Amino acid sequence: MISVTLLGAGNVGTHLFKAFNKNNQITVKQWFNRSLNSISKYKNNVSITDDLSNLEIADVYIISVSDEAVADISAALPFENRLVVHTAGSINIHDLDKKNRRGVFYPLQSFTKTADLDFSEIPICIETLEKTDYHVLKSLALKLGGPVKKVNSDQRKILHLAAVFVNNFTNQMYRIAHEITESEATEFDLLKPLILETANKIQDLSPYMAQTGPARRNDLKTIKNHLKLLKNEEHQEIYKLMTRSIQNTHVASTRATRSKKN
Amino acid sequence: MISVTLLGAGNVGTHLFKAFNKNNQITVKQWFNRSLNSISKYKNNVSITDDLSNLEIADVYIISVSDEAVADISAALPFENRLVVHTAGSINIHDLDKKNRRGVFYPLQSFTKTADLDFSEIPICIETLEKTDYHVLKSLALKLGGPVKKVNSDQRKILHLAAVFVNNFTNQMYRIAHEITESEATEFDLLKPLILETANKIQDLSPYMAQTGPARRNDLKTIKNHLKLLKNEEHQEIYKLMTRSIQNTHVASTRATRSKKN
Repeated sequence: MISVTLLGAGNVGTHLFKAFNKNNQITVKQWFNRSLNSISKYKNNVSITDDLSNLEIADVYIISVSDEAVADISAALPFENRLVVHTAGSINIHDLDKKNRRGVFYPLQSFTKTADLDFSEIPICIETLEKTDYHVLKSLALKLGGPVKKVNSDQRKILHLAAVFVNNFTNQMYRIAHEITESEATEFDLLKPLILETANKIQDLSPYMAQTGPARRNDLKTIKNHLKLLKNEEHQEIYKLMTRSIQNTHVASTRATRSKKN
Repeated sequence: MISVTLLGAGNVGTHLFKAFNKNNQITVKQWFNRSLNSISKYKNNVSITDDLSNLEIADVYIISVSDEAVADISAALPFENRLVVHTAGSINIHDLDKKNRRGVFYPLQSFTKTADLDFSEIPICIETLEKTDYHVLKSLALKLGGPVKKVNSDQRKILHLAAVFVNNFTNQMYRIAHEITESEATEFDLLKPLILETANKIQDLSPYMAQTGPARRNDLKTIKNHLKLLKNEEHQEIYKLMTRSIQNTHVASTRATRSKKN
């Protein structure tokens, strides 16, 4: 049994609370938030507070607040030498106040309050300064059922950056497709199976091998027609840049393969 | 029972053959390809030929060849007034030779030879010039089990363009993430659950509502740090452009909501 106190009730904090709360090997000791309003509906499940001086002893304190607030709240904790971790992709472990033992518990997933998540599918990236703390966090992560990975602050930054490409930028591609289809009297819904298959395909195939389409096969006629169809200048710019990027990827590696063969 | 003759053995043609061949309400009468080599392994399942003059009567002739070759092969067919369709996203129905009845049978999916596909998940976009032909194609598509949609040539071009965004460009985002993570000694595999969740999320949520991340919340500090981490100029350019696109989307509509409220 591990006891956890949560600080913060944003998307990550709320999903963590739900996952911990339904897990019978984890106790959520307390849930702190600046505003009690947003967590008051959980008060039958957990002791809630808006006062740091009320915090009792727990095995792990998980700070899950906006990036800018992590350092401040860790400095404001009225105790020392306990295990305090944050959940942010782009914050260094050393940004936590050193009066406590420090760690990172970063679930590599996109959190939206409304969408339900299965933590047994979410990799938890762990970093600590002390080995014993690593074992505590690893044991906590394993109870959630997903893969657990030791990741240092530099690697975590890279993962967070890569996540922006595969999540935010990809989602913006969906958004642009949504705009194009809806404005031309056809249905975005028709693209949903393709969107799923695109994500499914690279579970077993490298993105390099999975690439298809006009840029990949250097079909200049279709590329030209597509640019004509696009009415929005920004969409044209994205189309050109992504097409060039695909061409550079595949031309460069065709050349590499060729020179290896020669 | 519908009889079909397939022309071409690329990715789409091969997947169609497999789907038709295992369907007991569809007969593949013949399979034509310029080179018999690539289809000879199927000769126990279907009559194969490399000679258009060998083609017998079938309910539907499906031309599934490269875009440039569609018009020529339709003109070279040695018969008239039969139902001849192509499977291409960006080819007009009128590019088929008018000596035959014309149609389009466009499966909106990304086809890679190695990846298996479930046609019951693939929308088939249909266009014909005559109503009776529409019913033949609709009946063929329904036998495959997926959604069927009437889509004219202009709408199909838009869908094909939108598919480039959600498939090719999205896959290139995966590819860039692959490059970034592998070159910095961390694992692309850790991103796979996030990639799946990104695609899953918009099955029920609009891409607009699903957006998260530094650009969405205008987190300039993280954006600046990410640009510093990127070593490849093209990746920087993509990061900047996609960030700007997300900001434009969300700032523009925040303004729209505000002015509605006022």
